[in-house]
This record gives sequence, C-alpha cells and structure tokens, in this order.
Amino acid sequence: MNTRGRHLLVEYTGCDASVLDDLKRIEALMNQAAKAARTNIVASVFQPFEPHGVTGVVVVEESHLSIHTWPEHGYAAVDFFTCGESVPELAHKVLSEGLGAERAEIVTVDRGLSHTGPSMRMRSHSTERYGDRAFEMISSTNGAHSANGHTSVAHGSPAPMLAAPRS
Amino acid sequence: MNTRGRHLLVEYTGCDASVLDDLKRIEALMNQAAKAARTNIVASVFQPFEPHGVTGVVVVEESHLSIHTWPEHGYAAVDFFTCGESVPELAHKVLSEGLGAERAEIVTVDRGLSHTGPSMRMRSHSTERYGDRAFEMISSTNGAHSANGHTSVAHGSPAPMLAAPRS
Repeated sequence: MNTRGRHLLVEYTGCDASVLDDLKRIEALMNQAAKAARTNIVASVFQPFEPHGVTGVVVVEESHLSIHTWPEHGYAAVDFFTCGESVPELAHKVLSEGLGAERAEIVTVDRGLSHTGPSMRMRSHSTERYGDRAFEMISSTNGAHSANGHTSVAHGSPAPMLAAPRS
Repeated sequence: MNTRGRHLLVEYTGCDASVLDDLKRIEALMNQAAKAARTNIVASVFQPFEPHGVTGVVVVEESHLSIHTWPEHGYAAVDFFTCGESVPELAHKVLSEGLGAERAEIVTVDRGLSHTGPSMRMRSHSTERYGDRAFEMISSTNGAHSANGHTSVAHGSPAPMLAAPRS
C-alpha cells in the first residue's frame, strides 16, 4: 500500500469576513473542496469559535482537510492532506475562490516517502495574489503550479525555506 | 485575537504495528496527546482504514491533531497544530512513546505570523532516533528542542529545506 501523501499548508488572507464567520458556508465549502480534490468523505466536524470564527475538519478516506478561521483578521489557516490519486490543488482552488481571498501562501510537503530514510520533502513555498493575479514563488526545488493552472512565477533566486525569519 | 499557531508535521516510523491497527488505542493516545499539549478537546473522530490502519482527528479549541496509520509499514503521519499557549511538543512526546516508534522526523512551522506579508515560517526540520537516542537536526534557523527536552544535535552545516530531493 502506497503511503505517499501530498500536504498543502495554506494561509488565506484578505478574505471575506462574513464567509469566515459562517459555519454552514465554511462546512459546505470544505466538503465541496474535498469532492473537488477527488477524495471520499468519511466525516465532517465543524464548530464555532468564540467570539468569532469556525474550526472544522473533513475526514476523508485519503486523509483529511482542516480549516481554522479568524474573521476579525480576514485570515484562515487551512490544510489539505491527501494520499493516492487525489489532487489537493483542486481543493485549494475551491477555497481561494470561496473565501474571496486576496492572497494565499502555500507550502507543499511530500510525506510518506521512505520508512527508513527521510520521509518528508518540501516541494515548494509560494504566494498567490488574486487582486492583480501575481504569483510569487518564494522557493522551490521541483517547480510548482498554482491552483488555477498558472505556473507560479519565480521571484529572485531560490531561497532556503529556513532563511532568516521573515517579518 | 492572536492568530499565531505552531504546527508540527511528524512522520513516525518503525512503530508497533499492532498499536497502529488498534483504533481504540490510537484514539486514546491522540486524546491523551491533546490533553498533554494543554488543549481543550471539542470532538474526536476516528475510523478504521481498509484493509489496515486508522485515520482520525481530534478537534480542539486551539486547532487540531490528526493521525493516519499504515501498520503494514510501521508508519504514521501525524499533525499537531495548536494556537495560543498550547505545547504541541508535549503531544509529540506522548505519540513517540505510545506508538513505540524507532524514529520521528519532525517539521515545525510557525503559522499566522502576518496578514499582509509572509505568514508561514519553517522553524526546524529534525530527526529523532529512539533506539540509540540520537537526534539529528536536518536544518534550522531558530534552534529546536526535541520532545523529551534534549536539544537536537546539529548534523553537518544547516541545509535549506528545499535542498535537492532526498531519497
């Protein structure tokens, strides 16, 4: 059985605050995203945060999708972790549009690569800006594609992910 | 409201296969881990994989903890994502012992750092081996501590996380 998985960590900013605070809408978006990514939904658990926001997870046969939102900051922290033939980038496309995000920062990690040696590899770290459709690749080894099919534009020379803290 | 979160991505290998295939035990371990990390449990959803393994998520007020196991490979992919004053390293300690892992590979990511600029930062990428208590730091900017209080030992010069693919 193949253990190889692909994990997208995504930070959405400049999102529509009313969407981020709407539990039913967030749950519907995340379930739509799970289907778009070609996963099979097992369970969906969503809860309101106090005083604002939503936290939730869609458990799928191919791993999970999670979201935590801060409407007061227009911010959502999302993970798409899938195995097999699923396509987490398609889930990202659903969320970036559904949240009305101005910007997404995406780290892609390959997991389950080896059971005796290094098992994780950082594939890419990129930023997409939807206002002006600018795509900035922070760093990458293997090249990466943004969710909507555009290839991310390399920005400067590839930098280590563990460069000096960025503020 | 502080959006800053800490996210540990952990690959456990060389684990006890019977534990990895025991849904009740995995769920109990993950709930114990959530409490150890000083989070407040909201929901716990665990399902068996076919033909082997367990997939599950503990939703907590401070974000979530997830696990996916492949007993036939002695492998588990685990995420500890917490905000606020929680300590995800304490959850990792519960899992590394509870799964009887020989080895853990850990990537630590800071999230929610900025809503206008870069929001994620890779803090460290390290390996812990429990057989001989060896700790290898693959790369780090800020220094990191292993779950049991030992400081990880730097191994060679710091390398970018996006170095050439490791196989």
